[in-house]
Amino acid sequence: MSVDPGRTVRELHELRALTGDQNGAQRECWTPTWAAARAWLREKIAAVPGVAYELDEAGNAWATLAGASDRAVLIGGHLDSVPNGGWLDGCLNLVAGLEVLRRVAAEAAAGSSPPVTLRLVDWADEEGARFGRSLLGSAAAAGQLDPDAVRDLTDRDGIVLADALAAHGVLVDRMGEARRQLGTAAAYLELHIEQGPVLEGLGLPLGAVLGTVGVERNVIRFTGQAAHAGSTPMAVRRDAFAAAARLGLDVREIAQRHGGVCTVGSCVTRPGIVTAVVGECDITLDQRNLDAGRLAAMLADAQAAAQRFAAEERVEVAWTPTWRIPPIPFDARLVDLCDEAIREVAGGRSHRLPSGPLHDAASVAQAGVPTVMLFVQSLRGLSHNPAEDTREEHLELCVEALDRLAAKTIVWVATGAR
Amino acid sequence: MSVDPGRTVRELHELRALTGDQNGAQRECWTPTWAAARAWLREKIAAVPGVAYELDEAGNAWATLAGASDRAVLIGGHLDSVPNGGWLDGCLNLVAGLEVLRRVAAEAAAGSSPPVTLRLVDWADEEGARFGRSLLGSAAAAGQLDPDAVRDLTDRDGIVLADALAAHGVLVDRMGEARRQLGTAAAYLELHIEQGPVLEGLGLPLGAVLGTVGVERNVIRFTGQAAHAGSTPMAVRRDAFAAAARLGLDVREIAQRHGGVCTVGSCVTRPGIVTAVVGECDITLDQRNLDAGRLAAMLADAQAAAQRFAAEERVEVAWTPTWRIPPIPFDARLVDLCDEAIREVAGGRSHRLPSGPLHDAASVAQAGVPTVMLFVQSLRGLSHNPAEDTREEHLELCVEALDRLAAKTIVWVATGAR
Repeated sequence: MSVDPGRTVRELHELRALTGDQNGAQRECWTPTWAAARAWLREKIAAVPGVAYELDEAGNAWATLAGASDRAVLIGGHLDSVPNGGWLDGCLNLVAGLEVLRRVAAEAAAGSSPPVTLRLVDWADEEGARFGRSLLGSAAAAGQLDPDAVRDLTDRDGIVLADALAAHGVLVDRMGEARRQLGTAAAYLELHIEQGPVLEGLGLPLGAVLGTVGVERNVIRFTGQAAHAGSTPMAVRRDAFAAAARLGLDVREIAQRHGGVCTVGSCVTRPGIVTAVVGECDITLDQRNLDAGRLAAMLADAQAAAQRFAAEERVEVAWTPTWRIPPIPFDARLVDLCDEAIREVAGGRSHRLPSGPLHDAASVAQAGVPTVMLFVQSLRGLSHNPAEDTREEHLELCVEALDRLAAKTIVWVATGAR
Repeated sequence: MSVDPGRTVRELHELRALTGDQNGAQRECWTPTWAAARAWLREKIAAVPGVAYELDEAGNAWATLAGASDRAVLIGGHLDSVPNGGWLDGCLNLVAGLEVLRRVAAEAAAGSSPPVTLRLVDWADEEGARFGRSLLGSAAAAGQLDPDAVRDLTDRDGIVLADALAAHGVLVDRMGEARRQLGTAAAYLELHIEQGPVLEGLGLPLGAVLGTVGVERNVIRFTGQAAHAGSTPMAVRRDAFAAAARLGLDVREIAQRHGGVCTVGSCVTRPGIVTAVVGECDITLDQRNLDAGRLAAMLADAQAAAQRFAAEERVEVAWTPTWRIPPIPFDARLVDLCDEAIREVAGGRSHRLPSGPLHDAASVAQAGVPTVMLFVQSLRGLSHNPAEDTREEHLELCVEALDRLAAKTIVWVATGAR
C-alpha cells in the first residue's frame, strides 16, 4: 500500500480555505480559528481505523496507532500559525503525517500490524505568536517548561496566558504531566518547509536536517560623544555609528570564517538628527551556528572586534545578552535514514543542512529522543508571510519522502538497531 | 580711551541671572523672557550718550551712533537662544559690541567724533527655535525672506508664526522693509563663540572666520530584502544595513579627501528586529565644505560610492535632498584685519577657520555687505547646551579683539580703502 500525496495537497488547500483569509493563515494558537483547524484534523483522524485520539495536559493532540510494541515512532507538527501566516508552516507536517498514518493503518487493517506504535502529534503553540513563548507544548512534554515563567504572560489585549489556556482546558500547573507522552518515544520525525533559500538555490526539492543551530543574541551599545555636524572636525569625533558600522560589516567575515550566520537586524542612533554626530548607537547582533565551539568562537571574535573598533574610534562599548540556546544536533543514524529516503524519491539527490529557525523537534531532541527533520524547498525563502509557498510537485514529493523515512524508522526501532 | 572687558563679563553674568534658569538660557525668540533680555539691553544702550535706538519692521533692534558719514560699520548678534541654551551663544556678540559702542561714544563725547557711523544690531530670531526658521530677522534685512514661506509655520503649541510676531509688533508682510537698514552698511562684524573644538585643540583663544560652509543634506534609502536571520545564508542576503554601513564609513574618507566634514547623524532600520536581515535602511548625510567645488565633489563622490555599494550588496539606493546652501565666503580684506586684531591682543597668534554653523553674518554677506566673523574658543566644543562655556580670560580677550577689529574697520571704511 502507498500514500496518496495528491490528497495531502488537496487537504492543505481545504485547511487553507477553512482557516485563512486574504491576509494569510489565521490559526493563532488558543483562538477559535485554531480550534476549528484542530476539529478539522480530528475529524480526518477519526476516519482512520484503529487510531485513538487524546489531548494531553499541555494541550498537545495525539493520534495513536498501536503496534506490536509500545515503543513509538512519532511524527510531529503544529496547526497553529502566526497571524497573517503562510499556508504550510506547521500544518504540512501534520497533513503529510496523517497520510503516513493512513497508509500504516490500512496495512494494519489488512492484517499487517506495525511492529511498533505510530503516533501523530499536533504540538500546542509552537509559534508563541500570542504570548511570546514559542515551543510551549513541546517544551512541556520535554520537561523544559517552568509554569511560573509563563503563567503571567499577557497578549496584546492584556489577557493572561493562564486564563487563555484554561479556556481551552489547559491548566498551567498541570502542563508538566505531558512528559509521560515521551516515555515510550523511540524516534521523532518532523517534516517542515525550509523557510530559507538554500534548497531552492541548489535546485533540490528536499534536504535532511542536521540539527537546529545554537543562537547567541546580544544588544551592543557604543557610546561616543554627540557633537555638532558643522563645527566638529572629522579627526576629533567620537562617532558611535562609525564603530557600529565597522562591527556590522566585520561580523559578516566572522560568520563566513566559522560557517555560521551573523545578523545586525536593528540599528538605533541617538540623538539621531541630521546635524549631530551620533553619540550613542545600539545594534542587535544575532549569531547562529550548528557547532557549539564555532558559535562560541563567533561570539568571542565579535566581542574582540567590537573592543578593537571601540578603541580605534575612542568610544565605549557594552554588551547585553538577550537570549541564547545551544545547538541541538539531530540523531546521526536518523539523519542518514532521512538522506536515504530523500535520495530514493528525488532521483538520488539530497542535501544536509542545519535549521536556522527553531522547531518542536529541538524540544524533543533535548529530551533525549532520537530526532530528525526533513525539509522541503520554500519558494524565495519566504515564511511567516501569506506569500509563503512550495511547488505542488515538491509537496507531493515530501509526502513520499516522509513515508519512506517513517517506514525505515519503524524498522530501525523494531529491529532494535537503535 | 579703551574698552572695559571685565564689565562685559559682569554684564553677561547679569543677563544670565535675568534670563536663564538651572536648565540654561531661556531667551527663546518671541517670548516674554526674550523681551526681558531686550529691555535689559535697551536700558544699557540708553545710558550710552548720543546713541539712537529703533526697531525695524522685521523686529531687529538697532543702536546707532552717527558719525561724520552715513556709511556704517555694523556689529551684530542675537539675544535669542534655544530653549535650555548656553549663556554666551548670540548675546556675547551684543554685550561685547556694546562695549565697543561705549568706547567710540565716549570718544565722540570727548570731541573725537567717528568718521563713519557705528551701529549695533540685535537680530530677531536667529535660532528659529520656536518655528524652525533660523536667521529670520537677518534674512528679512538681507531681502531673502519670502513671507509666504514662513507665515503659516506653527510652534509646538500650534501657534502660527504670523500671530506670534504680531504680538511683538512685527507684521510678516512688512518684514521686507527692513532691507533699507543695510542700504548704508559698509561692513559687518560678528563675534561669536566657536561652538566647536578647533581653537581649544590648537590652544588658541581666538580665530578669524573665513566664511560659512556650504551644506548638502540628503536622506539616502537602501532597499534590500528582509529575510530570516536564521535561515538565510550570508551569501544570498541583500542587506540594506550593510550597504548603509559601508557608505557611512566611506564618507569619512571623502570628507578627509576634500577637506570638509561628512556626518551620518541618523540610521533607521526596517523591520528593525533582531531576527531579520534589514530590508530597508535610511541614513541622513550632512556634508559641509567652505569651497563650492569641493562640496560638489564630496556629494558626487558619496553618490558614486552609494551606487557602488548598492550594486555590490545587490540593493537599491535612492537619494532625497532635504536642504542645501552654498558656501558664503567672507570679505578677504576684513578677514585680514580680523587676523591682525587677533594677533595684536593674543601674543601674535591667530588661526583662520571656516564656520560650520550658520550665522546672521551669512545673511548679511549674501546681501553684498563686506563681512567677517571673529571666533572665541568654546570649552569642549559644547553649545546649544547649558554646559556651553568659555574661559573668562578668553571672553575678556575677545572684547579687546572685537574693539581693535572695529577700529581698523572704521578706518578702512573711512579711508575708502574698501
